[in-house]
Amino acid sequence: MHRPSVLAFDVFGTVVDWHGSISREAVSIIPGIDGDAFASAWRAGYQPAMAEVRSGKLGWTKIDALHRLILDRLLIDFGIDLDEASRQHLNRAWHRLDPWPDTVAGLTRLKSTFNIVTLSNGNLSLLSNMAKNARLPWDLILSAEVFRHYKPDPETYLGVAELFDLTPQDVMMVATHEDDLQAAQGCGLQTAYVHRPHEYGAEVPKAVGDLSVFDVEARDFNDLADQLVRKT
Amino acid sequence: MHRPSVLAFDVFGTVVDWHGSISREAVSIIPGIDGDAFASAWRAGYQPAMAEVRSGKLGWTKIDALHRLILDRLLIDFGIDLDEASRQHLNRAWHRLDPWPDTVAGLTRLKSTFNIVTLSNGNLSLLSNMAKNARLPWDLILSAEVFRHYKPDPETYLGVAELFDLTPQDVMMVATHEDDLQAAQGCGLQTAYVHRPHEYGAEVPKAVGDLSVFDVEARDFNDLADQLVRKT
Repeated sequence: MHRPSVLAFDVFGTVVDWHGSISREAVSIIPGIDGDAFASAWRAGYQPAMAEVRSGKLGWTKIDALHRLILDRLLIDFGIDLDEASRQHLNRAWHRLDPWPDTVAGLTRLKSTFNIVTLSNGNLSLLSNMAKNARLPWDLILSAEVFRHYKPDPETYLGVAELFDLTPQDVMMVATHEDDLQAAQGCGLQTAYVHRPHEYGAEVPKAVGDLSVFDVEARDFNDLADQLVRKT
Repeated sequence: MHRPSVLAFDVFGTVVDWHGSISREAVSIIPGIDGDAFASAWRAGYQPAMAEVRSGKLGWTKIDALHRLILDRLLIDFGIDLDEASRQHLNRAWHRLDPWPDTVAGLTRLKSTFNIVTLSNGNLSLLSNMAKNARLPWDLILSAEVFRHYKPDPETYLGVAELFDLTPQDVMMVATHEDDLQAAQGCGLQTAYVHRPHEYGAEVPKAVGDLSVFDVEARDFNDLADQLVRKT
């Protein structure tokens, strides 16, 4: 195994529990709502919204604004009346997502050996507020917003290597999403799959394909640290 | 005083002691060299090199590459023969600059109340490596590299406010350079001047103009924290 020097982390689902966090916030702001369904529906609007940016139908738009577009439609679908201040507050729930229990400890161990950076479609202020709130010890916060391209566009994966004057092989993408890792692999990055079985809620099983195509498979960030800090 | 929510810090000279650090590294790599003169000459090449980017004579070039261009010319001027590996190592001295004695303590206090971010002409990997090495607790590392404009171009100052969905007045620029603060002020940002009397070396007095035009004047980062954390 070639020793990477940078670990680039996907964030939503990999580092933080978006489903549980959004579900809890929705219920606290809109009593009686089905938080699980609301969180799932909000997230389901995310890929189509980014596709509109990728196709050029929308100009460059940050995730905060995409989240808000989706939220406004969602409130109509759910038949919910919410004032502007509450909408803004709820939209910022994505800045307050809770980490998985192993996240901070695992990242802290990995940071001793590697440069740990984000590579997320979330915008910079979202990722910065999230890191401050959850005490995520990033060496550098990188975002689609820096590259003006959303993952899985190659500009994002290759952009991390270029910023650090590295070859793609010197960077390892860490994610719980096979499509993200496959795109990174296509650009020459190393890859680590991390299991997050409850990403879509405790009740929703997460389908997983052939993980042997990735360089590393880890149960969580502590396991990732066990494997990488030992190996390198 | 309107309470800012983001403090944007200039880095070279304001946060770290480039003159002392470069001088020490130069002497350790090139025994017998006049470290003070070497550090001053290296830094003197910096503004003209950025001006070449700003004028379009050079395409977008990160500071690492500008530092290397200047270094290669400087070694000729100083009549020094240095192999490629040593040149690369010396060029990376800018990634290893030491903070001023009050820097980490002051930033840590300010971080409890404000979002603390960099706004530096240094490139992202340089700023990230520096933060890791010196344990600088940034909430977010921002650079000319994100905006593809060097300070004092307005795109940099206004870019910070836009990233956080703030008005310029919600951002306070912190620097030990009056021209940087004047440019920020011209964009509507608040400003804090921090005294760094030994920025150009212990022997070189630093000329200072009328500082009353800035919102805050501080002896160092502890004094800045005393003034801002109290006031707001």
